[in-house]
Amino acid sequence: METVKVNASKKYDVIIGCDTSALVGKKVKELSPNGKVCVVTDDNVAALHLDSIRDRLKESKIKHEVFVFRHGEQSKSPKVLFELLEFLANKHFNRTDVLIALGGGVTGDLTGLAAAMYMRGMYLVQMPTTLLAMVDSSVGGKTAVNLEAGKNLAGVFNQPDLVLCDTRMLGTLPREIFCDGMAEVIKYGVIADRRLFELVRDGGAIINLEKVIARCVSIKRDIVNEDEYDNGKRQLLNFGHTLAHSLEKLSNYEISHGSAVAMGMLMIAEIAWKNKYSTERCQDEIIDALLENGLPISCPYEPSELYYNAVGDKKCTAGLITIIIPERIGRCRRLELSLDEFRELLKSN
Amino acid sequence: METVKVNASKKYDVIIGCDTSALVGKKVKELSPNGKVCVVTDDNVAALHLDSIRDRLKESKIKHEVFVFRHGEQSKSPKVLFELLEFLANKHFNRTDVLIALGGGVTGDLTGLAAAMYMRGMYLVQMPTTLLAMVDSSVGGKTAVNLEAGKNLAGVFNQPDLVLCDTRMLGTLPREIFCDGMAEVIKYGVIADRRLFELVRDGGAIINLEKVIARCVSIKRDIVNEDEYDNGKRQLLNFGHTLAHSLEKLSNYEISHGSAVAMGMLMIAEIAWKNKYSTERCQDEIIDALLENGLPISCPYEPSELYYNAVGDKKCTAGLITIIIPERIGRCRRLELSLDEFRELLKSN
Repeated sequence: METVKVNASKKYDVIIGCDTSALVGKKVKELSPNGKVCVVTDDNVAALHLDSIRDRLKESKIKHEVFVFRHGEQSKSPKVLFELLEFLANKHFNRTDVLIALGGGVTGDLTGLAAAMYMRGMYLVQMPTTLLAMVDSSVGGKTAVNLEAGKNLAGVFNQPDLVLCDTRMLGTLPREIFCDGMAEVIKYGVIADRRLFELVRDGGAIINLEKVIARCVSIKRDIVNEDEYDNGKRQLLNFGHTLAHSLEKLSNYEISHGSAVAMGMLMIAEIAWKNKYSTERCQDEIIDALLENGLPISCPYEPSELYYNAVGDKKCTAGLITIIIPERIGRCRRLELSLDEFRELLKSN
Repeated sequence: METVKVNASKKYDVIIGCDTSALVGKKVKELSPNGKVCVVTDDNVAALHLDSIRDRLKESKIKHEVFVFRHGEQSKSPKVLFELLEFLANKHFNRTDVLIALGGGVTGDLTGLAAAMYMRGMYLVQMPTTLLAMVDSSVGGKTAVNLEAGKNLAGVFNQPDLVLCDTRMLGTLPREIFCDGMAEVIKYGVIADRRLFELVRDGGAIINLEKVIARCVSIKRDIVNEDEYDNGKRQLLNFGHTLAHSLEKLSNYEISHGSAVAMGMLMIAEIAWKNKYSTERCQDEIIDALLENGLPISCPYEPSELYYNAVGDKKCTAGLITIIIPERIGRCRRLELSLDEFRELLKSN
């Protein structure tokens, strides 16, 4: 078991290991000795993990309710958010009670926002069930629902009070969902840690899951501690993501987030090398890492299509766009470009 | 003109005086040199003040949009909140742009929440147009919309970047809306400042408006600085409010907030004296102050009715309720009671 301590506007632990879910009762009691719990989860995850979590809460004699919503991105909506908030009110929850987000990114983002909003804040425990959620969305406090006008446009920063990453839950993940998470793991390697990158490139992720997740969380923690509210350094976490969001939109979300990040990282690495922003040729190693981990390496869209969709992205401010460039594996930096420069760069690929 | 400096999780100025709205262009430019503005207001306020605000923005060459919603508490809803967020997205606002809340408490609470949520936070300028909003809701960062299950149940803490209180706008307020705000002014006197209380009790508010508002804002600022997230001292601001919320609910919101606070303060003062929590008999002076300022002094409901509705209030946690007791005019303290004790106290009146 590994514990990563996060020291943002709220201090909290991310506990990673096999069967860390067994800690849930004890940890909830520490947070809120007399609090009750609402477990928020989708129907897919409920079928797999809800009973065992409820058993653990019962063992600790913690009163709890369960809010189950339909799985999928379409539930990350104002409608489901307010159904959850009304549910909490009707069940007489108050601000010293605890929400548990049991699931992937949709569940974590939705529940995190509800926890921030209900009576202006109640306790939040993240129990991510996907690799992507463990290394990314459960840490750092970004919460959101989607607007009709775009993804993640309505949210707040709300740090959890605890994150329990139970690696045993990853055993139930379909292979493509697991691979999706590996794209983010590779990202952490490229932006901050060559050793992590090499381990993953050489196929060592599965047998070192606990360590790999802990390392990703530590990297994210270090970045979030420096820039909780995403005004600078935190943008490094967006390596590959500006193009990834564009790809996801273009495919009408048929391309998964991880696959899109994979293509986005590779394209940016190629562009960075061709335009002499990199001191090292990274793209070949990135290709090796992507292939080893079941991720795609070719992009079905034209640069002009990618450009058009990328500049609608929220990271584009006042005619400028910030992209993240790998200088070498293990080190990235921000590059601010005019929209014209960005379009030219994309065409150069 | 008076400026009160607030030093909460965000630092900001509250500028109070006649025609402070004239500063809006200059101040917006300081906040966000290239930002555009969305003015959020209701149809009533739009008819009175929107043109002059737009003229000022135009003079400063600031691009702006206007979002007008139907006046009234029923607009403080998830529906209008998300209409506003979609509007911002469709007009391509981004996180370095500015929302201006032009109006009373409904506008301020709704807009404050939207500013917190849109892309996880954009700039927020409060331009309160009622006395109540100037002394209360525009400062301190509480934002919310109502749920079907109850008022203000969905919100976050989000401090504004600037508050402009233009006392000239108070000239257009109907008398009963102005008096409503005076209940909160009297509250500040009772909880923290005998001199303010005496000034207001003796009919001096209208000719000293700027000073009176600045004093109220300073008191609130001092309390919010100590307890931004409402876990302790901030509860002093709830003097009279536990019963007030109960009264509002019982009357189906026919009784205004100010009238309810007036009755709530008086009842608690009477109860505190009868049960020897006060060192000074406050109720007679409170009656004088309320009558002088056009506020009611008798309550149409029974203690048992008030009790039943009060304990559903969100300030009631785990079988305990915290009420605010005046020890003397100018000094209040918190008193934590079991629900039984609270019911008995109410009956004693």
